[in-house]
Amino acid sequence: MATDYEFQGWLGHDPESVNGKMEWGAFEPKKWTEDDVDIQISHCGICGSDLHMLRSGWGPTPYPCCVGHEIVGKAVRVGKNVKDIKIGDRVGVGAQARSCLKSDCPECSTGNEQYCRNGTVNTYGSVYPNGEGKSYGGYADYNRTNAHFVVKIPDVLPSEAAAPMLCGGVTVYSPLKRQGCGPGKSVGVVGVGGLGHFAVLFAKALGADTVVGISRKASKKDDVLKLGADKYIATDDDKDWDSQNARTLDLIISTVSSDKMPLSGYLSLLKVGGTFIQVGAPDGGNLPAVNAFALIAGSVKIGGSGIGSPEEISEMLQFAADKNIRPWVETRPLKDANKAILDMADGKARYRYVLVNEKHA
Amino acid sequence: MATDYEFQGWLGHDPESVNGKMEWGAFEPKKWTEDDVDIQISHCGICGSDLHMLRSGWGPTPYPCCVGHEIVGKAVRVGKNVKDIKIGDRVGVGAQARSCLKSDCPECSTGNEQYCRNGTVNTYGSVYPNGEGKSYGGYADYNRTNAHFVVKIPDVLPSEAAAPMLCGGVTVYSPLKRQGCGPGKSVGVVGVGGLGHFAVLFAKALGADTVVGISRKASKKDDVLKLGADKYIATDDDKDWDSQNARTLDLIISTVSSDKMPLSGYLSLLKVGGTFIQVGAPDGGNLPAVNAFALIAGSVKIGGSGIGSPEEISEMLQFAADKNIRPWVETRPLKDANKAILDMADGKARYRYVLVNEKHA
Repeated sequence: MATDYEFQGWLGHDPESVNGKMEWGAFEPKKWTEDDVDIQISHCGICGSDLHMLRSGWGPTPYPCCVGHEIVGKAVRVGKNVKDIKIGDRVGVGAQARSCLKSDCPECSTGNEQYCRNGTVNTYGSVYPNGEGKSYGGYADYNRTNAHFVVKIPDVLPSEAAAPMLCGGVTVYSPLKRQGCGPGKSVGVVGVGGLGHFAVLFAKALGADTVVGISRKASKKDDVLKLGADKYIATDDDKDWDSQNARTLDLIISTVSSDKMPLSGYLSLLKVGGTFIQVGAPDGGNLPAVNAFALIAGSVKIGGSGIGSPEEISEMLQFAADKNIRPWVETRPLKDANKAILDMADGKARYRYVLVNEKHA
Repeated sequence: MATDYEFQGWLGHDPESVNGKMEWGAFEPKKWTEDDVDIQISHCGICGSDLHMLRSGWGPTPYPCCVGHEIVGKAVRVGKNVKDIKIGDRVGVGAQARSCLKSDCPECSTGNEQYCRNGTVNTYGSVYPNGEGKSYGGYADYNRTNAHFVVKIPDVLPSEAAAPMLCGGVTVYSPLKRQGCGPGKSVGVVGVGGLGHFAVLFAKALGADTVVGISRKASKKDDVLKLGADKYIATDDDKDWDSQNARTLDLIISTVSSDKMPLSGYLSLLKVGGTFIQVGAPDGGNLPAVNAFALIAGSVKIGGSGIGSPEEISEMLQFAADKNIRPWVETRPLKDANKAILDMADGKARYRYVLVNEKHA
């Protein structure tokens, strides 16, 4: 079957592309297989990872690179081996891949695809083995992805709400669920940006007794309370914020990526046996030094979590549909993608930008 | 009621005492209250903490100081408010205290006395508030302790086996239990000394599928397998030990106290979602730097755990009695305590020294 559409999108050709220098152009998608789905893209969220990748922040990017892994659109071609997706379905693709998908893989066979060590390809910016080409993301007209990573979007969820959940949302939903966020629990969210705002929304919807937003400046307080948080801590502005709130939280999700963050202070907020989960990583990955006594004195833990599995994404979307969760997004025309990533880099998003491909929306 | 016995023991008078310079002498125990128990000491284990305290390793020690918090003996005086202990009972006192014991304390009221932040007194080396004197430990003829921290020893457990469990044993038993060691789990033990040898014994007895001893040199392998471990990893001697054993363990208990330890390598041994618990702390408390990616890539956690509650100590002693657990101990006469702590400092213990007070044993 030939396709009557062309793959075009915003391409980064070098690290300068992150400074608003992406160029629109055609690209050759991965070689078609009968496990794949082609998606006519209507929406794509902008994730901080897109900027990291454009600037080769996590190692050399194989340019040209089309970023974007919060893709929503319509399935327009579906491989013969694909069971759950039909042509015309509204579907999404999140931050996924590097998964081998083998039946004997300890991760891929247990809903932990995101932690597989034997995969080779991310949603975008990766070279397929065996000459299948490269992976390209969602700042584009069309996307081609293995159906294992294509999820259906519940009807009641608007596309601009679903898109940013596919990476930003599930990155916090996964650790909230796995660490037992729910009734009886007090949950803190460090950093209230794109990921953090999702963490507040999901923690509250999951039934946590208390949700506490934690950020540096008092200026975000009103927004955070409007999102549903019960309390706000401004670490730059609230005197003795750590001792005043010591041992009040069961779980903290940290979306902040800095080796300067007051990690010991955050740990002191945990109840005995509490857990601090880091979901953001600075470019080098370094965290502030941890003192053994800070861990031992309150029997607390520091852990990490990365994105989520396709199964978790589907679960989250249904949960968001059932609970009528509406992230705070600002839509931007796909044609203005360069301006949008500059605004994203400047921290102007409140709290997530979603590119809208007006040809397909 | 007056007492017909005198409190005498090995006293450290300055940091030099750790170099075999403790002096035998009389001391004034804490002021008697009707919540207390006096114990005629027959056995006392030697713990690394004793040496830290003698040398003022965790801050200035209020000399004179009699160390030892693995105390076993006979109750010879029991306060009127004490319900569970009778004169003549064989009892133990572990590494405990700094607990306020108030009914509204979030820690003391929930079996987490060891994590209370409002207490003031350790088993030894602390000054009581309200002029009640100081706390003295078990390298002595007698000990006086609040009955909350006095546990009964099951009849079938020899005193020299019970003594080192009271701190060394419960320090690893507590995190093994709290982190779910049992059937279906693979457990690693980093460092096979006093604490580590208990971790191997308890992990196996708790039913872990696989117990792996992890130490630097191959020379300890035979001992570790004899203790019941299924496997041994020598990090100095086994080539590519980390990649060869990647993602094989659910839980690691680390008894090693060094800011030089190969922490990233240890973390790579954990399965997705696995947990590394640090129970030892170097004098300064610094751990090697942790990279956020090391936590995120496998969704692993690093935590800490400190000693155990009196309830956990009692549970552990009964478990050890039921499972016929026998630690590897070497008894030393109390009169030779100075020589014993020098040997302990030299790493000669295989794997725990217990001082025997021959006047009372």
